[in-house]
Amino acid sequence: MKYVCSRCGHEADTATRAAACGCGGLWDLDYRPPVFDPDRIDRSVWGMFRYHEWMALENETWRDISLGEGMTPVVPFGGNILLKMDYFMPTLSFKDRGAAVLIAHCRSIGVDKVVQDSSGNAGNSVAAYCGRAGIGCEIFVPQGTSPKKIAMIASHGAEVTVVPGSRDDCADACREKARREGLFYASHVYNPFFYEGTKTYIYEVYEQLRRIPKTVFIPLGNGTLFIGIVKGLEHLAESGCLPEFPRIVAVQSECCDPIAKAAVSRASHPAEIRPCPTMAEGIAIGKPMRGDEILAFIYKYNMEVTATPEAGILDARAALAAQGIYAEHTTAATYAAYLEYSRKNGTPPDSLIPICGAGLKSDK
Amino acid sequence: MKYVCSRCGHEADTATRAAACGCGGLWDLDYRPPVFDPDRIDRSVWGMFRYHEWMALENETWRDISLGEGMTPVVPFGGNILLKMDYFMPTLSFKDRGAAVLIAHCRSIGVDKVVQDSSGNAGNSVAAYCGRAGIGCEIFVPQGTSPKKIAMIASHGAEVTVVPGSRDDCADACREKARREGLFYASHVYNPFFYEGTKTYIYEVYEQLRRIPKTVFIPLGNGTLFIGIVKGLEHLAESGCLPEFPRIVAVQSECCDPIAKAAVSRASHPAEIRPCPTMAEGIAIGKPMRGDEILAFIYKYNMEVTATPEAGILDARAALAAQGIYAEHTTAATYAAYLEYSRKNGTPPDSLIPICGAGLKSDK
Repeated sequence: MKYVCSRCGHEADTATRAAACGCGGLWDLDYRPPVFDPDRIDRSVWGMFRYHEWMALENETWRDISLGEGMTPVVPFGGNILLKMDYFMPTLSFKDRGAAVLIAHCRSIGVDKVVQDSSGNAGNSVAAYCGRAGIGCEIFVPQGTSPKKIAMIASHGAEVTVVPGSRDDCADACREKARREGLFYASHVYNPFFYEGTKTYIYEVYEQLRRIPKTVFIPLGNGTLFIGIVKGLEHLAESGCLPEFPRIVAVQSECCDPIAKAAVSRASHPAEIRPCPTMAEGIAIGKPMRGDEILAFIYKYNMEVTATPEAGILDARAALAAQGIYAEHTTAATYAAYLEYSRKNGTPPDSLIPICGAGLKSDK
Repeated sequence: MKYVCSRCGHEADTATRAAACGCGGLWDLDYRPPVFDPDRIDRSVWGMFRYHEWMALENETWRDISLGEGMTPVVPFGGNILLKMDYFMPTLSFKDRGAAVLIAHCRSIGVDKVVQDSSGNAGNSVAAYCGRAGIGCEIFVPQGTSPKKIAMIASHGAEVTVVPGSRDDCADACREKARREGLFYASHVYNPFFYEGTKTYIYEVYEQLRRIPKTVFIPLGNGTLFIGIVKGLEHLAESGCLPEFPRIVAVQSECCDPIAKAAVSRASHPAEIRPCPTMAEGIAIGKPMRGDEILAFIYKYNMEVTATPEAGILDARAALAAQGIYAEHTTAATYAAYLEYSRKNGTPPDSLIPICGAGLKSDK
């Protein structure tokens, strides 16, 4: 298994500490899983690593790292919707899928300390798995991050460094420290092992339903879930499991929609936008590092990208809660996008919507 | 299927709205499940209702009520411990197991509104499933309940009534309203259907491990998990699945230990105690309504009851978090009891510990 630069094609050993290629391009994994065969799922494992046969894993370190993430249920919600309850997780968000694989990789190559920048679920999740793995961890968060979030990250033994300025300043400070001190940058965006975890989302749906619903809604910020799902779908399609590729609707926020704007004009790069504040913090990414890759997928599979109206988020959150599901604001934004989509296009007959984060995580 | 009074033996139809027998005794279910056979688990269901063949269910209403609760993983934690991650649940606590069955029962018998008293996870869970089921719900909480908890309960469409005075005053007000207005008292303590849900905890462990660990730690307040587990174990034993009954260690708080005190003198009734405040709110029950039943089980199976020291709770919580698991204070108390038990008796070779609630639920 090797890293291949997504920009210049340069190859590197996956044991490298370099967060990206020298040319600035991000790493992809040169890994082709064998044909997906439901009979070969390892049912002795009660979690997403039951799909280990089709995940880029260097060895079995994941057995020590796993906290039982994944295997989340798919729940009917009204006649036309299936909800994937992906906050039934160790740190209450879907990020645990990616973090478990990423930190297992770190353990495999002997990393003893990682740094990461995140004000949200990814930082929390990486900190938790580093705690589990006995790997040192420093999380950089932007000024203004709530004391509750800082306390949760710190509870896992991570050092938390608050960086004055913007979210981008925070990322710069983190990468600078990684570069200067030769530390491993455990980024959910940069590191391709993360997507080996998030792709299990769609393997699970296939195992649970023995099909993929016709319309698949996916929140889209940095694309950590989006890229994982698309890779998983491509693998299922290559394996002959999909009669047709599902309709994918990627969900951005109207306050921060660089991909949606770019897709309108079929641009290759994310649009330059000026983000405004949104409650959908989990997808509020102004400059998605893998934006070109995301746009290429969007054109290849003729996906839709919506920019969900801010005004619908609280109503959507209340509607989910009124039926028993207390979800994060970003999750509510995805459901709001579904509702808006249905108003415009009619209710899709068969939709899959992820419930990515527990409501308490986005409460102040 | 019938209710049988646990005190006088009087029988009633399970469609009754009476919360208890006229004599004051609580209802038990006259239900004997068929022999447990792992080959008959309904693996098409991704949740605890996969054990429906051995649960007292009147019909299939649970298919509409379920939010995918259960099927939580068992995770190795050090060499001697298995953690059952039972907060990977719709409302982030194990109470969802019981509430799902209880509210499915309510739907089955045509209940259109329930009342319940709880300041914690049970109220939250019952409110959520009532939202899911379209059943009206009023939750009585004691004065001083945090606004966050009230908001979460209310988010599910439940009415929240704050009662001045103590926790007992709150329960009295609730039962008085139920009696006066003929409303259904959806109590996790009174109603025996709740235990049909919590018993799936141990079926899952058996399916996952094909054995039951030698020592089983269980938090013990009202006994909602305890009674469920013991009923499940008895069923597994009768079905020939257990070579021996496990050692059970029931965990109370040193600040509120009516069962532990009673067990010392082999009394038949819970001891009269004066509770002091504890961080382990989930087991802080001064007068457990099913205390006699719990004590009978303790003597029958020669269980241990410990009163966990308050001083160990925060350290135990930190120790779990440092290894990636951010749990409620009550869960931490169970782990603290394990640590204390190990100090006194040596580390048990093979222990099962439940992680019953997510940490954010008990943060202020």
